[in-house]
Amino acid sequence: MTTAEIITIGTEIITGQIEDTNAPYVAKSLTEKGIQVLFQTSVSDDKELLKSALKIAGDRVSLIVTTGGLGPMANDITREAVSELFGVSLVYDKEACIRIQKYLGNQHGNIQDGYMKQALIPKGAFVICNDNGTATGFVLQHNNKVIVCLPGVPGEMQSMLNKYLQEYDVHRKPDDGCAVIIKNLHTFGVSERSEEDILRECLKDKGQIKAMTLVHDGIVTINILATTREGEDAKRILDRAEQDIQKKLGHAIFGVGNETLEYAVSLLLKKCNKTIAVAESCTGGLVSDKLTNIPGISEFFMEGIVAYSNKAKVDVLGVPEELIQEHGAVSSQVAQAMAKGIKKRASVDIGVGITGIAGPTGATKEKPVGLVYVAIAGDDFVEVKECRFRGSRIDIKNFSANTALNMIRLKLINIC
Amino acid sequence: MTTAEIITIGTEIITGQIEDTNAPYVAKSLTEKGIQVLFQTSVSDDKELLKSALKIAGDRVSLIVTTGGLGPMANDITREAVSELFGVSLVYDKEACIRIQKYLGNQHGNIQDGYMKQALIPKGAFVICNDNGTATGFVLQHNNKVIVCLPGVPGEMQSMLNKYLQEYDVHRKPDDGCAVIIKNLHTFGVSERSEEDILRECLKDKGQIKAMTLVHDGIVTINILATTREGEDAKRILDRAEQDIQKKLGHAIFGVGNETLEYAVSLLLKKCNKTIAVAESCTGGLVSDKLTNIPGISEFFMEGIVAYSNKAKVDVLGVPEELIQEHGAVSSQVAQAMAKGIKKRASVDIGVGITGIAGPTGATKEKPVGLVYVAIAGDDFVEVKECRFRGSRIDIKNFSANTALNMIRLKLINIC
Repeated sequence: MTTAEIITIGTEIITGQIEDTNAPYVAKSLTEKGIQVLFQTSVSDDKELLKSALKIAGDRVSLIVTTGGLGPMANDITREAVSELFGVSLVYDKEACIRIQKYLGNQHGNIQDGYMKQALIPKGAFVICNDNGTATGFVLQHNNKVIVCLPGVPGEMQSMLNKYLQEYDVHRKPDDGCAVIIKNLHTFGVSERSEEDILRECLKDKGQIKAMTLVHDGIVTINILATTREGEDAKRILDRAEQDIQKKLGHAIFGVGNETLEYAVSLLLKKCNKTIAVAESCTGGLVSDKLTNIPGISEFFMEGIVAYSNKAKVDVLGVPEELIQEHGAVSSQVAQAMAKGIKKRASVDIGVGITGIAGPTGATKEKPVGLVYVAIAGDDFVEVKECRFRGSRIDIKNFSANTALNMIRLKLINIC
Repeated sequence: MTTAEIITIGTEIITGQIEDTNAPYVAKSLTEKGIQVLFQTSVSDDKELLKSALKIAGDRVSLIVTTGGLGPMANDITREAVSELFGVSLVYDKEACIRIQKYLGNQHGNIQDGYMKQALIPKGAFVICNDNGTATGFVLQHNNKVIVCLPGVPGEMQSMLNKYLQEYDVHRKPDDGCAVIIKNLHTFGVSERSEEDILRECLKDKGQIKAMTLVHDGIVTINILATTREGEDAKRILDRAEQDIQKKLGHAIFGVGNETLEYAVSLLLKKCNKTIAVAESCTGGLVSDKLTNIPGISEFFMEGIVAYSNKAKVDVLGVPEELIQEHGAVSSQVAQAMAKGIKKRASVDIGVGITGIAGPTGATKEKPVGLVYVAIAGDDFVEVKECRFRGSRIDIKNFSANTALNMIRLKLINIC
């Protein structure tokens, strides 16, 4: 099995000024190709530090992928570091020179030297063309090690990595052996603890399958990883494990891969041909925001009301003022009245009402921070759920929004 | 100067399943204390690999901070790796035992062994209490190196790191030498290119100051880094540079550090004692969502209407139907009518109206994806801005929302 290390280069990474999205992208892509990533390292734009990191990586893995440091500036030092460490001189790649000149609009006289520096590659290396910028990537083979150097701009890096990995597939020796497939199943409504128990049971005789859970805003994601040897069908093994898990978890699973709860809701709205409108208090528009991230949702999502003030609850949603006085704005009764009110106002099939205390202020002894009521109303039903969430204001908004989306989802599954 | 390496531990990181937010948080915190982070390394939940990473780190820096691997599961291996590598046995910390039992509700009989494992620390290490969970952090001094081990859950890790760094401040030797201070200035409305020119001019004689720009959702952040030697006043040098930049950029600067555009708006609403309501079409509730992320905003933010359908624009906001027919829902006229409509409906000082085409569908030849109108209306003014954004649906939502927030901000600065 090929082992790999990812080295991301940049002072903005090492000082924590930006989150490094390149490392996870490369890691995921390599893992999906069956390459085992052992280490990720980040280092500043410092040639000597980068050389030391490359040296260590060369001693412990067979494939090194670097991102960053291929630009035109003086502090772009990846080419030089590779050249000096591995004792390979830098040469201009003719085609890269032409491409850069073309990219910069043939301004021969005006091109800064720095830009042409981007056509330099270690002698004997293969070029990876950059269709979206001027930094030239390359692959260097050196003493049974492979070093792949890519630029740091995510859009450029990603397409160039994909080019390299296509080549990798072509040249992979059949005895490279095992395959790895990864699948993410997203669930809502079952605790991480219970899911871990279910996974343990489902996978107890399946040595080639590993699974782990990740929690985010109340969503529990099950990450299934199948590793198989040559001749085995990794996909079949993973599919069987997935089926077993699916049997236990049923509708708690709402999506795979990049699918979100709001995406699942949008598919069901389309399938059932139902329209929806949302009345939010404590979530402050987050449910509407999430739903309207989905292209084409305007056919089904009609309107959202962020009824932050009681006046808005009464005027726009028709919540009776007495109801607020009697039970308080954060109550099961008001959540239901909001859901029914928005349903009527917008003439939609499903109305949603959310009211709660996101904190940090606004709590009373009876109504603590995190108390949230979510209601959904249709022609012949009204349902309400009382929730008690923990965490920051933003956590509580997210938990509440996802709870609402999941209630809508389960209801739609039920009614059509 | 103290040099540091951050080691983040977790198979979910190394396979690219999650973005590692701990490394940038730790990196930023250490850098702000004047500690020079040289490397960041990520490694899977594998004891031998972690030991090798710790060994390398111990050879190249004086402070190692690890996150992750302190939980109750079998694959939580940080304690054991540190113990084995540095030859220090693990012992139960009595207070940690009590704290964990308390946290788990004194269910003595039912506590799984795994949980008590979390009270184990290397002999001679200092405990860092975890107020938000059961994983015990610790600081081990070994041969002039300091190893700080923290859990991987961001909320737990962050408060424990801050505890450690407060101690670090207390014990820091005065001859630790040079200081580094970082400051982020957030701006809106000036292009990155122009800001780079301004920075070059402002900083041309200031060798101790470095600055770079980062762009995110239309916000350009200027990152200023002052490095000074002993005796020099880094803060004074940075302040002077900041003043020079501020002179050039003026009100384009809306905040520093963690301050967001919506936070800047909330401060101004409070200062000017103005109320606000928002009518959104293409942003789908994002402006309301951002504003309601700010604690205490309910005093000033009264309501939001996500008028996705034309019916909602007419019914709730009172936009004349003829106006939509004549100019289209995406037009300067409708944006203004939405702003005026929500202002009247909610009886607030400032109404905001946003309409546009977020894509990918809905465009016409005259009205392309990315065309957005943002209007704000007060008692004696209506302003509207036509924008043409590029990018994905979500990019366009974000650019539009930030443009609206910035218009509100500049207006509030003007009127009070």
